[in-house]
Amino acid sequence: MRNSWLKQLLLPLTLVATTATAAETQWRQLDVDNTLLMTLPHGQVVVELAPQFAPAHVKQFKQLVNDKFYQDSRFYRVIDGFVAQGGPEQEDKDAPTLKIEGEWTAPSDQPFTLVQQPDLFAEQTGFINGFAAAQDSKGQQRWLAHCHGVLAMARGNEPDTASSHFYFTNGQAPRYLDRIMTIFGRVVYGMEHIQAIQRTTVIEGDAEVDKARYTPIVNMALMANVPAEQQIIIEVEDTNSAAFKEKLVQRRTRPSAFFYQKPPQVLDVCQVPVNSRRIK
Amino acid sequence: MRNSWLKQLLLPLTLVATTATAAETQWRQLDVDNTLLMTLPHGQVVVELAPQFAPAHVKQFKQLVNDKFYQDSRFYRVIDGFVAQGGPEQEDKDAPTLKIEGEWTAPSDQPFTLVQQPDLFAEQTGFINGFAAAQDSKGQQRWLAHCHGVLAMARGNEPDTASSHFYFTNGQAPRYLDRIMTIFGRVVYGMEHIQAIQRTTVIEGDAEVDKARYTPIVNMALMANVPAEQQIIIEVEDTNSAAFKEKLVQRRTRPSAFFYQKPPQVLDVCQVPVNSRRIK
Repeated sequence: MRNSWLKQLLLPLTLVATTATAAETQWRQLDVDNTLLMTLPHGQVVVELAPQFAPAHVKQFKQLVNDKFYQDSRFYRVIDGFVAQGGPEQEDKDAPTLKIEGEWTAPSDQPFTLVQQPDLFAEQTGFINGFAAAQDSKGQQRWLAHCHGVLAMARGNEPDTASSHFYFTNGQAPRYLDRIMTIFGRVVYGMEHIQAIQRTTVIEGDAEVDKARYTPIVNMALMANVPAEQQIIIEVEDTNSAAFKEKLVQRRTRPSAFFYQKPPQVLDVCQVPVNSRRIK
Repeated sequence: MRNSWLKQLLLPLTLVATTATAAETQWRQLDVDNTLLMTLPHGQVVVELAPQFAPAHVKQFKQLVNDKFYQDSRFYRVIDGFVAQGGPEQEDKDAPTLKIEGEWTAPSDQPFTLVQQPDLFAEQTGFINGFAAAQDSKGQQRWLAHCHGVLAMARGNEPDTASSHFYFTNGQAPRYLDRIMTIFGRVVYGMEHIQAIQRTTVIEGDAEVDKARYTPIVNMALMANVPAEQQIIIEVEDTNSAAFKEKLVQRRTRPSAFFYQKPPQVLDVCQVPVNSRRIK
């Protein structure tokens, strides 16, 4: 009995396949030209890039990856529950600055699967093609949400100063960064390896971390350029599908008996998992 | 410049010490009789137990720890972005069941440092002696919030079925579990080691994890029973202090120039760090 609670917690997800409104999970294969394979000493991470939301950032990042710009880079600022930031540490190594791409006006054909209105930080939250996002109540202005596991570009004080240094969020969603930083990807495989990156900051009174222990980036490559036998091919849940919308209903209403008392019928967009599966 | 953004992000915290309303961080030392030292193969974790909120759970857990009940236990159900659950895997090893302690009526002398009203999941959120919590608008009914890094007891479908198996939350706050699970502690040191616990579940299509790789609990002991030279003595921010309340104001208003456009003036209680420092 004591072991059953987590199975129960996961039931609302699997119930999708057994209720009257059941629909099988719909999957979407990632575009290998816009997928990053990052190799760390302790594991591999796959990131879906977001050219539809941050075209200039993705274009420059892909160029830098292809140019081996990040060779010998490390994660040099890693704060538990906040971010893991990486990039070249040589002062003279940089790339052109980029105009911020933190929000956009919604094109009429851009889907938006509503999750919550109002949310704490926005009038509405939802998913756009797998990415957690937010919008105003008219659905005109949109932006990506700083959930756990997004990839975004670091910058200076001015908005248009990002160039090459990047971070992955690794804690409770720092939604106060929404719109003022450019998110340009999200982890779809290997988030536990992002979590295992060596922290570089410590609390007052604890021993400093020797820089020799900082986590290096062993390799970064676009999946399209990875030899076929080393590729990791990922599919992700189609957040525009009826099956995904039904999953949202199940998460909101929690029909499982485990919920002997039902929680408030609200959803934190950053707490809704968008599942991945590995094809190869 | 490119490296400066995170320093800037942290500025709102340090500004506390430099503004007109400046107040030095006030610290509170933990009670060694209600502090747990958990040793994992890759690091040490310190947990503040919460007898003030979950007295029966803490009492039983302390007894089990002192009885070496968890010796040879492992984290056998670890889901990235959700929980790391541990306990003995022998079917015949169990402890008495506990009445759920998921919420309580506020005593008149219990402090509550307000963070947000309304929050997405509750009428009000705030801190009670370092613990993230929520309450109704009258401040009568209260409960702890399922933030990142809480320690709670697993259970079966019925509310009063928890006994010994426990979990640490390791992802975006699963607030839908508030009130229906008993939180009885929180990580105050070594959260990165909780994050590094071997995941036991994998996505569809990926190789299963060999059970030999599951993370064992090397040792658990109350800090009071740890030899002095091995003790880790932690102090935590006093969330009832004027300095902490000023920190909340700074986080809400973000005076730093890094915020060239100010975020919404709302705070997610689970995203407000309560800092620790190590004394020994």
